[in-house]
Amino acid sequence: MAEHTIKAFDAELHEIEHSIMEMGRLAASQVEDALAALTRHEPGLARAVIAADVDIDRLQREIEEKSVLAIARRQPMAVDLREIIGALRIVNGLERIGDYAKNIGKRAIATGPNTGPAAAVRGLQDMSHLVLTALRQVLDAYQHRDSALALAVWRGDQAIDAAHDALFRQLLSHMMQEPAAIPACTQLLFCAKNIERVGDHATNIAETVCYMVQGVPLDSERPKGI
Amino acid sequence: MAEHTIKAFDAELHEIEHSIMEMGRLAASQVEDALAALTRHEPGLARAVIAADVDIDRLQREIEEKSVLAIARRQPMAVDLREIIGALRIVNGLERIGDYAKNIGKRAIATGPNTGPAAAVRGLQDMSHLVLTALRQVLDAYQHRDSALALAVWRGDQAIDAAHDALFRQLLSHMMQEPAAIPACTQLLFCAKNIERVGDHATNIAETVCYMVQGVPLDSERPKGI
Repeated sequence: MAEHTIKAFDAELHEIEHSIMEMGRLAASQVEDALAALTRHEPGLARAVIAADVDIDRLQREIEEKSVLAIARRQPMAVDLREIIGALRIVNGLERIGDYAKNIGKRAIATGPNTGPAAAVRGLQDMSHLVLTALRQVLDAYQHRDSALALAVWRGDQAIDAAHDALFRQLLSHMMQEPAAIPACTQLLFCAKNIERVGDHATNIAETVCYMVQGVPLDSERPKGI
Repeated sequence: MAEHTIKAFDAELHEIEHSIMEMGRLAASQVEDALAALTRHEPGLARAVIAADVDIDRLQREIEEKSVLAIARRQPMAVDLREIIGALRIVNGLERIGDYAKNIGKRAIATGPNTGPAAAVRGLQDMSHLVLTALRQVLDAYQHRDSALALAVWRGDQAIDAAHDALFRQLLSHMMQEPAAIPACTQLLFCAKNIERVGDHATNIAETVCYMVQGVPLDSERPKGI
């Protein structure tokens, strides 16, 4: 590429990165707000989360289109193509995280003031704390192209899965002991699953960051089985 | 583009379309097999579904990379860029459908021979029939760039959502009447949700087909509310 083309391409990559960070922060705050709406029963906040999902979707489409246009205009080489492919994968993951937040928002409204057994709600909050930390760390790892931090996030997904399994069992036994709590517990089961999936997507983003930095996929040492 | 470049680009687009159709057929048969594994209790089939998910993931990465390389090599114009952006969106949806099939496969193993109340299992089968028909139709719509068929699939999602809501309520009341059935019913609840999500992705693919054919998004007339 000619010097001025390289500079223009770098500026485009930088703009894409900036939009991804904006999208990532929005996705994380959506998850946080959705959880708060559920656990503190604030239907107004839940409705705000549901409404804000279109902003995440809009950002995804904008980044997708910017990325594809940047490739078409500049014909970048292998390493820059990896940046763009990585960007496309990350925005996908963030859009899915936004969907999970929206779904928790819907369930926060459906659940009503009876949010289910207090111990399970606390368990969900603890698990969400792990997941939100992982999500914010992986966004840092992306911004600084820090594959060591990405790998740490990736390894941490096991703890999230273990917390989810424990919560799942706890909710199931509560339902069997107290059938009247079944509707609220069912909503909590789905919310816990959504949060666990947010963790999976943070893990996928970690894999993408490693691919962007190192040029090879991480698959071989994936910490959990099929 | 020069004549030979246009021909080479057309050949690349055709190859991408071919891979998407292969991926789509695989995703549909994965959903079908996962359902069969669950409802007929065939853990061997469930394990085959789980194992085959890597093929869907591999196809996604291949199509992504082919698409980005095609853009980088040929610098296509607006209408062809739309083809590529559309392809990237469709493979994403198909990969997610593959994930839902894999998840149903895991639940088929976890559930064991007691698959839950027969009426609910039948309800799930009926709903899956609607969803698989929608998925196969939307793949046809993509292959033939048939926006009328895509629109019909898109409108049909309301019936799938209604079937899911009915099944959800049925399972919940069964759990309250018969607490011993809670573990099996919980698995069915998640499987029903997975199938409903497959329907949502068929709907998203329908939107993408309309965007590819007509160049404008469908969002304004989305048949269901937020």
